[in-house]
Amino acid sequence: MKFSSLCASCIVKQVPLLAEINKIDDKTEKDTLRKVLSFFATADYSKSTPELVGGAWDIMSSQFGERDLYRSVKLYLNKKLLSISENIEKQIENLKTPKEKFRLALCSDIAGNLIDFAAPDSVDFETFENKINEIQNTKFGVDDSDILFEKLHSAKTILWLGDNCGEIALDKMFIKVLKEIFPSIQVFYTVRGMAVMNDVTTVDADDVKMSEVATVISNGDKSAGTVLECVSDEFKNLFYKADVVISKGQGNFEGLYLPDRTNIFFLYMAKCPVTAKMADAPVKSIVCKGF
Amino acid sequence: MKFSSLCASCIVKQVPLLAEINKIDDKTEKDTLRKVLSFFATADYSKSTPELVGGAWDIMSSQFGERDLYRSVKLYLNKKLLSISENIEKQIENLKTPKEKFRLALCSDIAGNLIDFAAPDSVDFETFENKINEIQNTKFGVDDSDILFEKLHSAKTILWLGDNCGEIALDKMFIKVLKEIFPSIQVFYTVRGMAVMNDVTTVDADDVKMSEVATVISNGDKSAGTVLECVSDEFKNLFYKADVVISKGQGNFEGLYLPDRTNIFFLYMAKCPVTAKMADAPVKSIVCKGF
Repeated sequence: MKFSSLCASCIVKQVPLLAEINKIDDKTEKDTLRKVLSFFATADYSKSTPELVGGAWDIMSSQFGERDLYRSVKLYLNKKLLSISENIEKQIENLKTPKEKFRLALCSDIAGNLIDFAAPDSVDFETFENKINEIQNTKFGVDDSDILFEKLHSAKTILWLGDNCGEIALDKMFIKVLKEIFPSIQVFYTVRGMAVMNDVTTVDADDVKMSEVATVISNGDKSAGTVLECVSDEFKNLFYKADVVISKGQGNFEGLYLPDRTNIFFLYMAKCPVTAKMADAPVKSIVCKGF
Repeated sequence: MKFSSLCASCIVKQVPLLAEINKIDDKTEKDTLRKVLSFFATADYSKSTPELVGGAWDIMSSQFGERDLYRSVKLYLNKKLLSISENIEKQIENLKTPKEKFRLALCSDIAGNLIDFAAPDSVDFETFENKINEIQNTKFGVDDSDILFEKLHSAKTILWLGDNCGEIALDKMFIKVLKEIFPSIQVFYTVRGMAVMNDVTTVDADDVKMSEVATVISNGDKSAGTVLECVSDEFKNLFYKADVVISKGQGNFEGLYLPDRTNIFFLYMAKCPVTAKMADAPVKSIVCKGF
């Protein structure tokens, strides 16, 4: 998926957001804005959005003197979503069939993909928890979840592509549910190789103790998504060998679209017109798209 | 008011929006994106946002081969808001005191400032009309309307600074109400000198027949707001001579802040953190701020 003009403004917006969170002075903020604008003015638009975001993040990190510019926000969201995911686990325990449990865990986890670029004071957690609960009764924009459930019956290894902080707590909850339904499945949970945007790294995996349910691995890259030209050989090997790949979020979908393997399922909220159009789904709908 | 980093992303977003409305091919869209990004990367950030928007608009107009890139949208919104303003006029007729009439016309007109950058299919007019009605009971972020009402008693000339298409129909309704309350007042209604964004020009004034209630004048400039360094001498003369200036919208406020004259009142919806902070009002609140 090539870079869309619409993506430029979303990434440029990161400069004032990050400057505010990290208390950056006006001169450095404006210098950084000029550098990021120049970067996109001359960028190779045949690259994918996640890769270009990675390049812009390098500039912002170097200018603001810190790689993990959303660290405080990420820690806060990881904790908050861990507590929300405990409430959802209780609801799931009360359900009768594995299919019902799978379905509620899936919907809640996709709803968690709503968290994106968000500073803590811009997230109303009561509304957010209500939205996760509502989503169970929301019609999917694309729904291949029956096929995913079927595929999992014969799978031995799942490669999971993590996306955002906060959301990672719901990923852990979903993986727990899957391991109860399919006890012999082994899950590899992938994080980014370096901090970029609010995407998950090993630090976020530690925040939610992901290793209790999955083997955490890094993809060795700084893109805000999965870009196969940039990841480590170890990750790439696993990507093609895993029986099923579960890919969370817009960034992974943008990076991998169109995928050159089968049994890969993209779970995300179509938050913007670009990723909605790619899946032929309405904006703001939830998507479970298989290939 | 100097350019804020936050404004860059809003203006960059215009490229894909306008490309879609005007059916521009992908290559021209991407070329234009590069040119607009370069323009902002090297712009003089001591200039005001409305002036820089004017510069970016020159690039988009020249690339897309049309000055009034929102013309079809503007015509649609002007018609639609004329019909909404007729409903509000009926409500106003049923009110008893001049002060009540003034207040409802004022609130409704500020609510009209909600229309901004909008393509017709992104505006839900039922919701919009409900919002205008709701706004009558909304607390202002800043409310100097009593002072404005008082000042109008002794005013002979009002200089009105128009802002967006659509909203101009509500301006006309408000001016009608004012002329009923203060029959001897003369109103000069200002439009931009050239098409820029969805701001009003003489064409929009004709769409709503503004000349029935006011003398329509151009400010002779292409900025998306009122920038005194750029306007015509004729306009500047009127600006300082008018007894009261009523300035609609964010662009005029950004251009004139801080004003070097008294009896000037800024009416707008604080749609973004930049203009909300300038008036010390909450984001999304309605503002009537006098100097």
